[in-house]
Amino acid sequence: MSAPRSSPAPIPTPASYKNAPTRSVSVRGVDFVYRQLGPHDGVPLILLNHLAAVLDNWDPRVIDGLAARRRVITFDNRGVGASGGSTPDTIEAMAHDAVLFIRALGLDQADLLGLSMGGFIAQVIAAEEPHLVRKIILAGTGPAGGTGIDKVTALTLRATLKGALTRHDPKQFLFFTDTESGRRAGRAFLERLKERTDNRDKAISLSSFRAQLKAIHRWGLQTSPDPSRIHHPALVANGESDRMVPSENTLDLAARMPRAELVPLYRDAGHGGIFQYHDEFVSQALAFLEP
Amino acid sequence: MSAPRSSPAPIPTPASYKNAPTRSVSVRGVDFVYRQLGPHDGVPLILLNHLAAVLDNWDPRVIDGLAARRRVITFDNRGVGASGGSTPDTIEAMAHDAVLFIRALGLDQADLLGLSMGGFIAQVIAAEEPHLVRKIILAGTGPAGGTGIDKVTALTLRATLKGALTRHDPKQFLFFTDTESGRRAGRAFLERLKERTDNRDKAISLSSFRAQLKAIHRWGLQTSPDPSRIHHPALVANGESDRMVPSENTLDLAARMPRAELVPLYRDAGHGGIFQYHDEFVSQALAFLEP
Repeated sequence: MSAPRSSPAPIPTPASYKNAPTRSVSVRGVDFVYRQLGPHDGVPLILLNHLAAVLDNWDPRVIDGLAARRRVITFDNRGVGASGGSTPDTIEAMAHDAVLFIRALGLDQADLLGLSMGGFIAQVIAAEEPHLVRKIILAGTGPAGGTGIDKVTALTLRATLKGALTRHDPKQFLFFTDTESGRRAGRAFLERLKERTDNRDKAISLSSFRAQLKAIHRWGLQTSPDPSRIHHPALVANGESDRMVPSENTLDLAARMPRAELVPLYRDAGHGGIFQYHDEFVSQALAFLEP
Repeated sequence: MSAPRSSPAPIPTPASYKNAPTRSVSVRGVDFVYRQLGPHDGVPLILLNHLAAVLDNWDPRVIDGLAARRRVITFDNRGVGASGGSTPDTIEAMAHDAVLFIRALGLDQADLLGLSMGGFIAQVIAAEEPHLVRKIILAGTGPAGGTGIDKVTALTLRATLKGALTRHDPKQFLFFTDTESGRRAGRAFLERLKERTDNRDKAISLSSFRAQLKAIHRWGLQTSPDPSRIHHPALVANGESDRMVPSENTLDLAARMPRAELVPLYRDAGHGGIFQYHDEFVSQALAFLEP
């Protein structure tokens, strides 16, 4: 008589995003890196990143907060950070790659949280692969053709130069308001991004960054997908003073998506509103994601 | 009988650039900020700064080394850092402002040390105001119309973006070679620039930076002044691998200026060669400046 076969010991879940190991999965022969945190059961929440961001750009307070109740997965899309391949220059192709990644993890349903450019990608995934998606959270983002989105390149380059000249991270200018509390919130956020000290991700390459800028510019000029055709439950959030993807785009999404719920715009906050108000956002997102 | 009139006590000379007070002098109604260090006698050495640089961008080792024997004066040209006014977009106008500054200090003769854009300005001053200048040191610079100078804008923007994405100071890429010793020298230089902690200068504004880029671009396309008409004793120095103002421009200046002396190009060094080899450069410059 043989001993009963024991199932493999579950991989211990890391306690915080700061220590979450970076894994990789092959997507049609290209390795995509990702990190996951939180319970093993339930519909996982896939996070879709903003312009230039890699795994280390997610606020650990947001990830840890969400992972207290949801399985949270962050990843680098094709060509970004430590993921292989080269970054495409359309949001549609990025969405296609994200779908391949989600399927490569063996998932047939996921929730999505897209920030800024990640919110563009989330909309395309929801429109193109409606059965893959359960619920969507859209933060600091807007519809195709949304007001001011074609200005993102100029704004980003300007903030990057200003940052280099004044020795500031450009995210201070792009993500936060230029008020006492906005500046303080920006500094605190930038410090939180440094909490992880080991096994940090690679920075995005200049060529991938340029491809993303091109994709964002195109998104600012195109008309599809139409948010009124995205029928998933959606939570829409932003700061009241977003300069990158002007806050009126958030209101526009909330008005046009048939099942959208708008989080009251965060006060004295900009594009990084969900990071500045991480506690509030985590509570609101977790309530929305409850089955 | 009255007591003999005592002369005012001499202002104590600060021991190092790190502690040199920032002074200002009115130049036709606009305050120009400057710092000075070193002995009170002898022909002073006026330093002309590079693109985007302010008072805090001079390597304290270079200033302290030169100030051991020479009166050294650094300043912010019109519209730069804490100096008033707005930055002109031609090298000629910057040279004109520098001459007004030198005269506002009550000087009728000066030596010049120009780095990069500062070297362009030094050439114009020497050509336009030959009697104001005794000797010139030209570092990391080139003649009007020199090879590759019209590419400085693109190269600078690229390095600035790369720096923002990888959290590096762009000067690491622009001033130093991408070798083990170049990277180490760059890090050491950037640390030295932080030695001054009190009363640091203001950063350059984005509009002044743009005006400088325009002036540099024009310099890369123009043909005058002709270095063969600058008859001052000149010392010409650079790293052997300058990407910003390609090192062949240094050789070209040395060949064309009738009284130029070429420092053998510094090995495994770029645009910031005089900072990387600060001890060697200080000795060479002091020997050259001996009356």
